[in-house]
Amino acid sequence: MKPKQARIALVQMRCGAKPEENFSRAIAFIRDAAKQRAQISQSEDHKNFELAEEIPGRSTSAFGDVARENGIVIIASLFERRSAGVYHNTAVIINADGKLLGKYRKMHIPDDPLYHEKFYFTPGDLGFQAWPTAHGKIGVCVCWDQWYPEAARLTALRGAEILFYPTAIGWHPSEKKQFGAAQYSAWETIQRSHAIANGCYVAAANRVGHEVPPLVASGGGDGIEFWGQSFVATPSGEIIAKGSVDREEIVMADVEWGRVNEHRTHWPFLRDRRVDAYAGLEKRMID
Amino acid sequence: MKPKQARIALVQMRCGAKPEENFSRAIAFIRDAAKQRAQISQSEDHKNFELAEEIPGRSTSAFGDVARENGIVIIASLFERRSAGVYHNTAVIINADGKLLGKYRKMHIPDDPLYHEKFYFTPGDLGFQAWPTAHGKIGVCVCWDQWYPEAARLTALRGAEILFYPTAIGWHPSEKKQFGAAQYSAWETIQRSHAIANGCYVAAANRVGHEVPPLVASGGGDGIEFWGQSFVATPSGEIIAKGSVDREEIVMADVEWGRVNEHRTHWPFLRDRRVDAYAGLEKRMID
Repeated sequence: MKPKQARIALVQMRCGAKPEENFSRAIAFIRDAAKQRAQISQSEDHKNFELAEEIPGRSTSAFGDVARENGIVIIASLFERRSAGVYHNTAVIINADGKLLGKYRKMHIPDDPLYHEKFYFTPGDLGFQAWPTAHGKIGVCVCWDQWYPEAARLTALRGAEILFYPTAIGWHPSEKKQFGAAQYSAWETIQRSHAIANGCYVAAANRVGHEVPPLVASGGGDGIEFWGQSFVATPSGEIIAKGSVDREEIVMADVEWGRVNEHRTHWPFLRDRRVDAYAGLEKRMID
Repeated sequence: MKPKQARIALVQMRCGAKPEENFSRAIAFIRDAAKQRAQISQSEDHKNFELAEEIPGRSTSAFGDVARENGIVIIASLFERRSAGVYHNTAVIINADGKLLGKYRKMHIPDDPLYHEKFYFTPGDLGFQAWPTAHGKIGVCVCWDQWYPEAARLTALRGAEILFYPTAIGWHPSEKKQFGAAQYSAWETIQRSHAIANGCYVAAANRVGHEVPPLVASGGGDGIEFWGQSFVATPSGEIIAKGSVDREEIVMADVEWGRVNEHRTHWPFLRDRRVDAYAGLEKRMID
């Protein structure tokens, strides 16, 4: 039977230099969310755990235990070691019975100052997907994917009624004064727009805290100030839950799956798509 | 030589029951904008002019005269009579020399209460385009198109550095209290998101004023309150000019074409698109 609603928990946490400690703290946050009757729990982008490992593996096994014990769905980002020299930024989807339901390998890979992702990560090859979990049909993209309407659309077309974005985005402290407000606003706006365009929920769990990696500090850099503010938006783009800018916390929201259909009936964007006229979207430029 | 900047004027006006009067008032607004050194002038969605006519025709000729006299580019919506029984909601692009540079036939056609567009309009068959005008490379979509990331993306991929959206959107007065703020916010958000996703400017000229068509009034309806608030957003989605909610006015903004490339260099979303993985966007649903 299709569930009518779900309680979503976004784990907004800091990450320190010790991967094992980050991991056990993430598990503790998820247990805490379950106590608050969360049904789908998402922890943010853990790429800096640098616990590259196979999937399934030790982490999915530990998450699986927590999921089964608490009857919750868990979405978690991992650093996947697929083969020698082939690593992915991968999100795993673990169902409420503890089984690994699927994985999403980050499709769009950035390469920004202090984010050397094109060096570490092979672009995903599993495409955009949706999974029918015990608590609702969900889609998962990761971080940089959030800037791509194509990713959101394809995930929604596969039936996802909520799009999860585990993410780790922040300010370069030296840019914050001049560009910070616009950068944050763009990030929130593009994700709200995915909810609006697709008539679905969007949930973004973002990292929080100011991190200065030792190598960066020795080079005189000032690291990244992860801006938190994890949020859940409704199909009309309204934000119904939002985390703080500087604290660790669990951001909770109750979603009503019936609103997806109701909203799409009143805002029938999917009805009117010109699927006959979208050739060219698979080109780099049309020139 | 490619222009470095352009002054944009959005004509935010009311429309009355007399088509000829609306038309001459639009011309007067455009002349006024030209006096304020506007170089690209966009008037809002004139579908209710119900001046169905051939293109080129009387209107494009009149707009052409104004464009040539003032050296400005004009974008105007018209009710195109293409053939017996085949009508389009069409925007014309008139270059600064007065010549008709191109036309865009609205691709996405809605059918909402009080907007019987699927009855009047044949869906466009010219696709998404961009035009090199004397004052910059522009793209034009119309109204309901604004809800579709595909339309914005395809227009940008063709080289448009600003997307114009002539539009006529408003509140049903009976819904305004409960849904009004969210509806307006969704409209602004989705269009800002096109600027962000594509690293280009967006300019939306919206109608203003409360209109109650005679037929609606006799049925006890209370018409539509067009919400004005025409705006121009930068490639990062920041709004740099915005009209009022209830007054006719010309909304002016200066755009710097160099910001498009600068922005796309800092936010290199177009660089990382997964053009190999977007199959499915041309499907209704992937099920």
